[in-house]
Amino acid sequence: MKCVVCKGPAIIDIRRHNANFCTDHFLEQCRRQVTKAIAEFSMIEPDDKVLVAVSGGKDSLAVWDLLVGLGYQADGLYIGLGIGDYSDVSGVYARDFATERGLRLIEVDLPETYGYDIPTGSRAARRAPCSACGLSKRHLFDRAALEGGYDVLVTGHNLDDEAAVLFGNTLHWHTEYLGRQLPVLPARDGFPRKVKPLVRLTERETAAYCVVRGIDYLVEECPMAAGNRHLTYKAALNDIEAASPGAKHSFYFGFLDRAAAHFAPEAEADRADLGACRTCGAPTTAEVCAFCRLVERAGGSVPEGRAPDAVSVDLGPTRSPSTAAGADPDEPASIGVGSDR
Amino acid sequence: MKCVVCKGPAIIDIRRHNANFCTDHFLEQCRRQVTKAIAEFSMIEPDDKVLVAVSGGKDSLAVWDLLVGLGYQADGLYIGLGIGDYSDVSGVYARDFATERGLRLIEVDLPETYGYDIPTGSRAARRAPCSACGLSKRHLFDRAALEGGYDVLVTGHNLDDEAAVLFGNTLHWHTEYLGRQLPVLPARDGFPRKVKPLVRLTERETAAYCVVRGIDYLVEECPMAAGNRHLTYKAALNDIEAASPGAKHSFYFGFLDRAAAHFAPEAEADRADLGACRTCGAPTTAEVCAFCRLVERAGGSVPEGRAPDAVSVDLGPTRSPSTAAGADPDEPASIGVGSDR
Repeated sequence: MKCVVCKGPAIIDIRRHNANFCTDHFLEQCRRQVTKAIAEFSMIEPDDKVLVAVSGGKDSLAVWDLLVGLGYQADGLYIGLGIGDYSDVSGVYARDFATERGLRLIEVDLPETYGYDIPTGSRAARRAPCSACGLSKRHLFDRAALEGGYDVLVTGHNLDDEAAVLFGNTLHWHTEYLGRQLPVLPARDGFPRKVKPLVRLTERETAAYCVVRGIDYLVEECPMAAGNRHLTYKAALNDIEAASPGAKHSFYFGFLDRAAAHFAPEAEADRADLGACRTCGAPTTAEVCAFCRLVERAGGSVPEGRAPDAVSVDLGPTRSPSTAAGADPDEPASIGVGSDR
Repeated sequence: MKCVVCKGPAIIDIRRHNANFCTDHFLEQCRRQVTKAIAEFSMIEPDDKVLVAVSGGKDSLAVWDLLVGLGYQADGLYIGLGIGDYSDVSGVYARDFATERGLRLIEVDLPETYGYDIPTGSRAARRAPCSACGLSKRHLFDRAALEGGYDVLVTGHNLDDEAAVLFGNTLHWHTEYLGRQLPVLPARDGFPRKVKPLVRLTERETAAYCVVRGIDYLVEECPMAAGNRHLTYKAALNDIEAASPGAKHSFYFGFLDRAAAHFAPEAEADRADLGACRTCGAPTTAEVCAFCRLVERAGGSVPEGRAPDAVSVDLGPTRSPSTAAGADPDEPASIGVGSDR
């Protein structure tokens, strides 16, 4: 197996590009794909102040590394979700990555600041864990980006993620979500600009990128996600990709090219009457935003003394009115989109 | 396992309806679903003269049986495709069904009338077999329906078929096909009205219907279809259906409810400049319709003396101008939609 660029020994084959790459040209390929995505969708300007949502997994650490390597000024944001050992370990990976590279990592601890963790909070609020988690993260991402004065919030969603979410939304014809499943959501109505620079890379490639770059990441999937529909959709798409390499890419980018605009009016209508949450000021279509409703039901569900010892940055008091961003309908859940409703 | 209606012993469970049925109430359920589909989409009027495209498989024989049982005046149409033993045997099932019930079966033999069979013709024309087959059948269905004075052409496409074709067209975002993937295509421009009364039944249910009704049908799948993408899509959807019963139904009917209309303008634009085929008079967007181009390239590809001994109804000379219906872009290929392009 030879590198398609230099004919040296290849370390990875990428079937949808019908190409093999050596170490150096694989890294170059990853950088080129990210550069291309950023340019194609006008994701980030050179002087933008960038905040990367970091979980400690391969995708978010890869995108942070890639952006820093491409010269962007990018800080990290880690949310402690209180999912037992999984969260404890994921935080270590995120902190170690930042410390070793002298990067700034903002931390928010959900149990400590809001009084619930995902396992107990989702039960208390009678929401699926992936739904409660996605909702909480989106709210805290938005809020941290706006309060920190960042121009853009970056997430590590890769092609597999986006294709699987699109697949779920298409299977259910959630037309209001289809209209805003885009690699860039412009800043508006109290939401920061949100971008996904990894949409041209698969999770196999982000994992290989981390290995090659010597980035330690948490390999385990979140234990709460086991059995959710998102994973069923990923498996179905993987079977199709195996039979027809490039199928995921053409599904996702074909959607962006030829179908997304058809659903834009429905996405727009869905947010037409966006107002400020009565409790926290975040944009919402309801009187009280979904995050505040979750906190209302789940807050205090963490047993005394269980909050971990994380170094957290206080983003302000819970449920006090503010102009900060909130949760609600700006973005479909990336995990467990089916169970969100 | 008890029948949901009468509490007698059930013979089948239908997970997406969360219901089990005894023999009698299963048959009633099938009739009700067909009646509902016909009414919901205004498929067939009581006095319509109906032509059912019959392959000898479970779906086409089931729909013919159901329509006759519901009181419609329905004849059958069998196309001999020259796919070796498969075609020979399928013709026997179709003929036996018609003979035993005193129904009229029109037969057209492709090798005898047009000088090619699917295996050799598709090679000669350098088309995938499923593509050449779908194209040939659509042309001959249209032509037979119009020349026979039928009001409506019925095909046996079931929910699994329609969901899988929709899936293929969605994976590729073939927006011009999405806009006309409907259970009813009205008569227009030299095409007869075409309807699919089985869209509310799965292939498991049509097979069970045949077994219960004592209908002998050809169980084997077409040998030429092995490995085509349509079967990959069916398998992927089956995995999703197993995890979420009802997923196929909501995918297909959700599309009809909430998405199909978005793509109607593209389907319309695709047929805007429909004219008459210079060779056969059938509607086409090209100068010569796709069927006549296929016959031009594939005709004469059957070795001498290989045409089977079928009793065929001559639908008129090949490639002489007529006002009959033709092939081309009225309907996406039901089999091998991916290989069609």
